[in-house]
Amino acid sequence: MVTAANSLELRLDRLGEQAAALGLDAALITSDESIAYLTGFRPIQLERFFGVVVSPERSAVIVPALDRGQVEEAPRRLTPISYGAESDGLPELADALAGARTVGVEEDHLIYSRARALAQQGFELVPAGALVMGLRIAKDDVEIERIRSACELVQEGLRRAFELLTPGVVEHALNARVEGWLREQGATAAHPLILFGENAANPHADPGPRELRAGDVVCADLSACLDGYWGDLTRCATVGAPSDWASAAWRVVLEAQRAAIDAAQPGAPGREVDAAQRRIVEAASELGACLHGAGHAVGLSIHEPPFLVPRWDEPLAEGAVLTIEPGIYKAGIGGVRLEDDVVVRAGGPEILSTLPLELVELGR
Amino acid sequence: MVTAANSLELRLDRLGEQAAALGLDAALITSDESIAYLTGFRPIQLERFFGVVVSPERSAVIVPALDRGQVEEAPRRLTPISYGAESDGLPELADALAGARTVGVEEDHLIYSRARALAQQGFELVPAGALVMGLRIAKDDVEIERIRSACELVQEGLRRAFELLTPGVVEHALNARVEGWLREQGATAAHPLILFGENAANPHADPGPRELRAGDVVCADLSACLDGYWGDLTRCATVGAPSDWASAAWRVVLEAQRAAIDAAQPGAPGREVDAAQRRIVEAASELGACLHGAGHAVGLSIHEPPFLVPRWDEPLAEGAVLTIEPGIYKAGIGGVRLEDDVVVRAGGPEILSTLPLELVELGR
Repeated sequence: MVTAANSLELRLDRLGEQAAALGLDAALITSDESIAYLTGFRPIQLERFFGVVVSPERSAVIVPALDRGQVEEAPRRLTPISYGAESDGLPELADALAGARTVGVEEDHLIYSRARALAQQGFELVPAGALVMGLRIAKDDVEIERIRSACELVQEGLRRAFELLTPGVVEHALNARVEGWLREQGATAAHPLILFGENAANPHADPGPRELRAGDVVCADLSACLDGYWGDLTRCATVGAPSDWASAAWRVVLEAQRAAIDAAQPGAPGREVDAAQRRIVEAASELGACLHGAGHAVGLSIHEPPFLVPRWDEPLAEGAVLTIEPGIYKAGIGGVRLEDDVVVRAGGPEILSTLPLELVELGR
Repeated sequence: MVTAANSLELRLDRLGEQAAALGLDAALITSDESIAYLTGFRPIQLERFFGVVVSPERSAVIVPALDRGQVEEAPRRLTPISYGAESDGLPELADALAGARTVGVEEDHLIYSRARALAQQGFELVPAGALVMGLRIAKDDVEIERIRSACELVQEGLRRAFELLTPGVVEHALNARVEGWLREQGATAAHPLILFGENAANPHADPGPRELRAGDVVCADLSACLDGYWGDLTRCATVGAPSDWASAAWRVVLEAQRAAIDAAQPGAPGREVDAAQRRIVEAASELGACLHGAGHAVGLSIHEPPFLVPRWDEPLAEGAVLTIEPGIYKAGIGGVRLEDDVVVRAGGPEILSTLPLELVELGR
């Protein structure tokens, strides 16, 4: 992942200013995605410590010695500090934080053993995950183009999946094949969730040994990470002509998706986007249940804030990229969901995918 | 993943006894793999809390309401507690811990925000990750058979990968195709790391756009998770007849692997297994460098203690399953590594794979 050095510098500037405005002496960033956002380098952490320290005295990136080469492109203001096999990285972290008392941390990522070691050294930890996440929410143009590229790969994957969907194909094998194809195209990670018939009635189901049969509805949710950024789309199909239920469910979800996309305006609270789809899906309760919110943001993570759910009061920022994915689910029958990735823009929402929303009729 | 209820009960018994012996009022287990070890159910956590509480007063498994159905097979002594969308699960956790003061936690998994919330409620957290990990180290017969099955799948994947290795194939595409194949066979996760030529000189390299060429050495490391347990094997090949370097490197690594396997005896410190291979690889320094330890344990995690490195003094337990994987790496040329999964047994080490260690000559 290559990000222009000046974008990275700007992000570090803003993080430093906002940390100072909160009265923090330093910010400590430890999640893979936030480190990637600030350095251009996405670590794979396993048990070894990686971190970025931003403070007025000294900003640093701390990595295991084996990974030292990978942070050479990090902004110059970040002093690279590496540690060898004899260290767990915490003494080097404490050195980089020397002089700070209050340290903002990503409270949902920092593990207890490290928090404890820092507290024992006299640092006062302050939950501050919202600082870097607040910056990550509004995507810049380069980030938006990367999400668009990921969406292009995903929609090509959906087209391919629909070609492979013939009666007798096994659900888990089909998902594995589509995952392999996405990885062959360069995706560094991919999560297909293509569910058949009654299995599609549970949006959290795992693909299983069930074969595709005539009459099935198929709910195909595909996501892939390309060059650091995720795309996430869902389309539906039926094996043969759609049933009355499938046609009606698809029409309701299509209307709900349009309404939610229209509601994705700068300044609107996340819950309003959810309410726009929920109203329509819940009014069609004879067709099934509304089991989840309108969507979530995508970017360096597949699932990141804001979440489009009833409790999300914060106003949407311009540049946020949201999945809009209403669905309706009928136990024993199936589920229909339509999902696009949408940029919140002053001029109105921009949809990053071009794949038609049609209910695909397989085998025609 | 189905584990006999009596095995799960036994694990809970032991965990409870050992926590009490350490003076803890309760143990809180939060990592996916440890929850799977105790309940038979492997959660996928994302942002939602899952946990197991083991205490003399009340043992419980706490899950999001959506996942309630999945813990029905958990041991009966674990009261299932689920929480809805209005909770983050922590009030339910505090209820389950009520009456306890000292709580042992998995310090390398519990996140700071949850540790902080528990501390604010008056619980005294004690790092105790070694408790459940100590139980997980010695595998029972059912676990060993699962690792054997995963190894069988991986060795079939290696055979297939070698068939696909013809000049012109692209490194990252080959890795993706092998990953897709392993997933099609039922692997819930798979990590191929098949590296060509000079890229194989770096055991941490990513597969890239490089095509396979005549004369390349290929270092093929494959791991896959089947039915909850990982297998992890490495074999090597050359495109055409091996160079003198490749033949000599392979002979050294073969000798080092035999020596390390022989050293994997109950009661031997982990460092001795490492020393057995290191001595041989380092004596061949004209062929390349010794860049890593002898291996690590596998089980519910692909990477778990004990680690076979110079600092690991703890004696090996009977039933531990270890990767034994010495390698030798020459910058600009390539790398050779041979890896098997080995059970530590009183009667001598048992190798779980049957694939020959030969240096495969591709295109013959």
